[in-house]
Amino acid sequence: MADGFKVINTRPGRPIGVGMLGYGSMGRAHSTALQQVPQLLPLSPRLVALCGRNEGAVAQAAERYGFEGYYTDWRQLVADDRIELFCNLAPNSAHLEPCILAAQASKHVLCEKPLARTAPEAKVMLDAVTKAGVKHMTAFNLRFIPAVRYVRELIQGGALGRIYHVRAHYLSESHHPYKQTPMRWRLSKAESGSGVLGDLGSHMIDLARFLVGEISTVSGMLKTFIDERPIGGTGQRAKVDVDDAFVATLAFASGAIGTVEATKFAAGHTSQRSLEINGEQGSIRLDLERPNEVELFWAGESKGFQRVMVSERSLPSAAPWWPSGGTVATEHTYLFQMAHFLDCIERGAPVDPLGATFLDGYRVAAVCDAIIEAAESRRLVDVVYEA
Amino acid sequence: MADGFKVINTRPGRPIGVGMLGYGSMGRAHSTALQQVPQLLPLSPRLVALCGRNEGAVAQAAERYGFEGYYTDWRQLVADDRIELFCNLAPNSAHLEPCILAAQASKHVLCEKPLARTAPEAKVMLDAVTKAGVKHMTAFNLRFIPAVRYVRELIQGGALGRIYHVRAHYLSESHHPYKQTPMRWRLSKAESGSGVLGDLGSHMIDLARFLVGEISTVSGMLKTFIDERPIGGTGQRAKVDVDDAFVATLAFASGAIGTVEATKFAAGHTSQRSLEINGEQGSIRLDLERPNEVELFWAGESKGFQRVMVSERSLPSAAPWWPSGGTVATEHTYLFQMAHFLDCIERGAPVDPLGATFLDGYRVAAVCDAIIEAAESRRLVDVVYEA
Amino acid sequence: MADGFKVINTRPGRPIGVGMLGYGSMGRAHSTALQQVPQLLPLSPRLVALCGRNEGAVAQAAERYGFEGYYTDWRQLVADDRIELFCNLAPNSAHLEPCILAAQASKHVLCEKPLARTAPEAKVMLDAVTKAGVKHMTAFNLRFIPAVRYVRELIQGGALGRIYHVRAHYLSESHHPYKQTPMRWRLSKAESGSGVLGDLGSHMIDLARFLVGEISTVSGMLKTFIDERPIGGTGQRAKVDVDDAFVATLAFASGAIGTVEATKFAAGHTSQRSLEINGEQGSIRLDLERPNEVELFWAGESKGFQRVMVSERSLPSAAPWWPSGGTVATEHTYLFQMAHFLDCIERGAPVDPLGATFLDGYRVAAVCDAIIEAAESRRLVDVVYEA
Amino acid sequence: MADGFKVINTRPGRPIGVGMLGYGSMGRAHSTALQQVPQLLPLSPRLVALCGRNEGAVAQAAERYGFEGYYTDWRQLVADDRIELFCNLAPNSAHLEPCILAAQASKHVLCEKPLARTAPEAKVMLDAVTKAGVKHMTAFNLRFIPAVRYVRELIQGGALGRIYHVRAHYLSESHHPYKQTPMRWRLSKAESGSGVLGDLGSHMIDLARFLVGEISTVSGMLKTFIDERPIGGTGQRAKVDVDDAFVATLAFASGAIGTVEATKFAAGHTSQRSLEINGEQGSIRLDLERPNEVELFWAGESKGFQRVMVSERSLPSAAPWWPSGGTVATEHTYLFQMAHFLDCIERGAPVDPLGATFLDGYRVAAVCDAIIEAAESRRLVDVVYEA
Repeated sequence: MADGFKVINTRPGRPIGVGMLGYGSMGRAHSTALQQVPQLLPLSPRLVALCGRNEGAVAQAAERYGFEGYYTDWRQLVADDRIELFCNLAPNSAHLEPCILAAQASKHVLCEKPLARTAPEAKVMLDAVTKAGVKHMTAFNLRFIPAVRYVRELIQGGALGRIYHVRAHYLSESHHPYKQTPMRWRLSKAESGSGVLGDLGSHMIDLARFLVGEISTVSGMLKTFIDERPIGGTGQRAKVDVDDAFVATLAFASGAIGTVEATKFAAGHTSQRSLEINGEQGSIRLDLERPNEVELFWAGESKGFQRVMVSERSLPSAAPWWPSGGTVATEHTYLFQMAHFLDCIERGAPVDPLGATFLDGYRVAAVCDAIIEAAESRRLVDVVYEA
Repeated sequence: MADGFKVINTRPGRPIGVGMLGYGSMGRAHSTALQQVPQLLPLSPRLVALCGRNEGAVAQAAERYGFEGYYTDWRQLVADDRIELFCNLAPNSAHLEPCILAAQASKHVLCEKPLARTAPEAKVMLDAVTKAGVKHMTAFNLRFIPAVRYVRELIQGGALGRIYHVRAHYLSESHHPYKQTPMRWRLSKAESGSGVLGDLGSHMIDLARFLVGEISTVSGMLKTFIDERPIGGTGQRAKVDVDDAFVATLAFASGAIGTVEATKFAAGHTSQRSLEINGEQGSIRLDLERPNEVELFWAGESKGFQRVMVSERSLPSAAPWWPSGGTVATEHTYLFQMAHFLDCIERGAPVDPLGATFLDGYRVAAVCDAIIEAAESRRLVDVVYEA
Repeated sequence: MADGFKVINTRPGRPIGVGMLGYGSMGRAHSTALQQVPQLLPLSPRLVALCGRNEGAVAQAAERYGFEGYYTDWRQLVADDRIELFCNLAPNSAHLEPCILAAQASKHVLCEKPLARTAPEAKVMLDAVTKAGVKHMTAFNLRFIPAVRYVRELIQGGALGRIYHVRAHYLSESHHPYKQTPMRWRLSKAESGSGVLGDLGSHMIDLARFLVGEISTVSGMLKTFIDERPIGGTGQRAKVDVDDAFVATLAFASGAIGTVEATKFAAGHTSQRSLEINGEQGSIRLDLERPNEVELFWAGESKGFQRVMVSERSLPSAAPWWPSGGTVATEHTYLFQMAHFLDCIERGAPVDPLGATFLDGYRVAAVCDAIIEAAESRRLVDVVYEA
Repeated sequence: MADGFKVINTRPGRPIGVGMLGYGSMGRAHSTALQQVPQLLPLSPRLVALCGRNEGAVAQAAERYGFEGYYTDWRQLVADDRIELFCNLAPNSAHLEPCILAAQASKHVLCEKPLARTAPEAKVMLDAVTKAGVKHMTAFNLRFIPAVRYVRELIQGGALGRIYHVRAHYLSESHHPYKQTPMRWRLSKAESGSGVLGDLGSHMIDLARFLVGEISTVSGMLKTFIDERPIGGTGQRAKVDVDDAFVATLAFASGAIGTVEATKFAAGHTSQRSLEINGEQGSIRLDLERPNEVELFWAGESKGFQRVMVSERSLPSAAPWWPSGGTVATEHTYLFQMAHFLDCIERGAPVDPLGATFLDGYRVAAVCDAIIEAAESRRLVDVVYEA
């Protein structure tokens, strides 16, 4: 130490204890987010415990991610009274019980998407967190892409007027034959509920709702292109009993019509998430592979679409979360989402409409279930949202 | 004249007499095509007569387009025995009768798309030309974009393997409120049969069939956003009784699934015709606003889509129609289409599969009718093609 | 013939006799243009005679292109008194003498670019046509791309204010090793004067002048990457004594600075001609591979560049040449250029500033010579334009 | 705490004490990087002290960035024996003395770019760190964009063969009139050495060197468009005595030629950094606004450029720094750079060629000085690198 050194004794905000179930890529994403939150807001999340069944792996991850310790049984995790926020990053089949027990233990709950395997399951979860009076969030992280927030602000401000069209797709090649993907839990109905529909489609359905409003009627076609896959490391094969891809038409409560599609069989696309909205006053295009860009057209004013670099523009309402200059990557969506949720917890503020709650998770599940029903019954299906 | 001048007495090919009904923008496009054909092939179309009801206008157009004379009554035109090829560019409601009478007078027939207002009407026309034994073509000119031909050759050659997905849309803003479009014949069911579905959707449906094969099942949603429009030059308004836009899901006989959409309410788009196909061996993307480009991805080989400038590559099978270097514009699709049809007439060769015949016109109409039925009945509809 | 047929006896405009030296791809392009001109303007060019040294080839081309006859000696061609317009499409070394003799025979002269092998040679040609009092044009056809005309109108109207920057390049791969291009006249200084500089660079230099004004000072680096090439069909090799590529910096009389570059060694580019201009009020980008598009940014107004589809917008001053709707291809630049020149001949109107005259041809040659001098002397060189 | 909780007592790696001069946007970027390093590597940087002259501001930043304390005098900072790594983020005029004193105190030194105001100044710094035997880095962070690393690996592996062309530009609008930028230290020669050349041009010059090798000869044109700017908050104006923009041609030791340009007067561009390289075996394009993409063309193999999403591909040599999936933003370049430097310190490994050292900082300064000399003398200038 040298002369003139002044010690900083204070840290921004109060600590909020966090327990996390799941330590894979989502565990890493949410942990990194927790560590960066203090850069954005005067909050200091405390990484209390990570949880997973494989002790060696969870211990290693806990060290790397900066947790104070770990559990191998989620029932112990949700019983830990140092924990104020429970993050459930487990497979879909392990969403319901841990979330409900955590809520009953008065913990706030963040759950990965899709919220549940079916709409009725999601409804049970929604009722539980509502009854417990805790904060709840479904991790539809795409809402936190600055370009998406900017578009929502434009639309909420009336910039498009009446909306005519929405077209949304999520194209991936991750299950394409040339990727030689073995059996995974996401390909089993018992564990995941549905396939691409719940995994990728749910993101685009939530985005469409977030930007344009509720969906009232759907058609649907689902397809399984490869109905058996090898079980890794064994000579055996397992049955795929969920969809590899789906297409659907949508009618919105507002009168707009649209299409939504998702697939893991689109060779050449790692993660092409695209959304276009056409309205009375103009059109908006998003391609989330380029998360810093929006294309805008204003009817009667523009001569063509203009490409806006959102990252460099002042977005007043986004200000608190905004990194100073520079571009934004996928990982920031987790940061902005976590910062928002912690801020809502701290200030007692509502999580929605900016963040997706369990109500949003439930409504997306209701749309997914309607698409499945439409495909099976070969009919248009009106989406029913229980009160 | 100076010393050394050598006279050219021969012209390429024999003259084929052409009569044309309709002198608007389509008349101009097909006339320019007729005049340029000798540059491509040893054929010399003779522009015998143009026909339209407004004598002043048709006379002026005939002079400009290079016709020898004109008629004001199409019944006289189709009776002219100098005419070997009849081109019907009239509104949809005037397709059936002139085409049938021309065929009965043993003239070959080229008819603008959509072939008819309904599938049954198209079937009557198909039966008439078949019975008359004349050559027939439905002017789905997009088949003649070099990039489209190149893609067809790739797919026919097995380059994609099994096809999983097709997504096609035709986005226009021509009837968007800010364009203040008055009532037109295309907005009247009696004259056009359907709205955007037949006008723009038929192009994309034909392209999807041309590239991927027949469509077996459809869902559909149709929408009329503005249901009354002013009658130009009067204070009155007329009822719009056709669709302003539609969305549909498609199942193909081959097992592929897809979406097709067309609208005239997509602000910012003059004519955005886009098609993507994903298959077992790769993916192909077309954006026909850039008619010289194709994007290709080969599974297991490419690291990303490559943008191919088709105009500069050697396309062996396209060679006869190909302009030497340089790029291609909309107008060339009419040139290549006309050259193909005249060549088939001259050589007695089949018009399909490269060109669309009345059979293609009928099958596209059957798909359009099925989409309407699906929308009205709120069901998936299997497309029925009569023998 | 049937009842009711009315004969058209008139044709638009008076015939203008045309003689053409050169029958390769440029011969085809200019011939097609001559045949289409009547669609645009009330003019009827008469294709009197084509000229080339190989009798078999020139006779075949004359038949195909629609000429009345042909010559094998250009001195006879320019002596033909039926000819009012002489088009010189020969190699650079055959520009001077035929153009001067034609002018002295009172024929209007269109000459392919670059106008001459050197600036002094171009000056002699300019003086000859000026003295003869005939109309003259250097075929810088890129001026007639609608997007370029639109940009010129914007800039002339003050839309950019003071201009800061110009960056222009013409990237081709035509002489890249993998193309295995043999020796050609363009690679011989005696026949072409310079290499890529005169062939491709001259286009970009003329465009920069057309849009931004005269160039006052240049630096330059020239490079010959492959200095010997096989002579086709022989076992021999010839020395390449011209540049394969060049780079230069530019200072404009107006105070703007810029770069210009051209190469035939840019693998992956067939003909990438790109131009960006940045000014006080905004920026403009052109990529001529997409000749229907312009990108515009207005300072203080736009949030990003907007992509304008020029072909579909009303361009008042371009109206007479404008095809009704649809996109534009390379070949239309020849059409619009020929229509403009014939129209100027007919109306006695000035060819410039819309079309490039021999004065423009000379000034471009002066800039090219200055770039060569700069490279050789390793100095900045001020461009000198003789009166 | 609940039953089953296991405490993690270890942290990855040994602590390395860091002291940082400068707390603005660069301070934030490098601090965030320091906090994230443990996610990538078993290293635990310790944020000992931040330094700045404004006590209130530096104290607040130190709290937010997570430093243990702060100094207001950099001489005290570099004397702090807890500090092993000194990061100099101060203006250019404050690079030399602190870096040298820190090196003399045996601290490793990271210095922001450009390394110094002139090449001689940079040489003194290089000599000092060399003599002190400490690790040194010039923060040319663009080297750490994954797409750039991928391109370097390709080129080093011989993928392009002989290189013909490099074209590089950095276009910004930050000093454009419509931004109404007041006087800043970067506009004063005494504080910055040069303007856009050192600030933006140095990045592109380093990238060109990193990818293609040393530059041997340059031409240059520099321009100051606005020569006086208001001093913020006063009624006064200050003289701008540095360049607002420059253009230059480059010759490389390898025989390639190229252009480099940078400007803050390109309306519409926030930060358009673009680089294209053409070689014997193919071409590579980078547009760093899209930092996850590279465009590749292989001569004789590709039919067009392919767009590769680098973020999703396995880059073996990049593995240690690579975030699992997802896209990369500007901020990650600071993370990867810091991780590399700390790793080199820990392992005693060389910082170059992956990272830029003070030798690179000096060589870039030599090229910048040569461009200035070329502009002033109106000559080509050979770059001289002192031993």
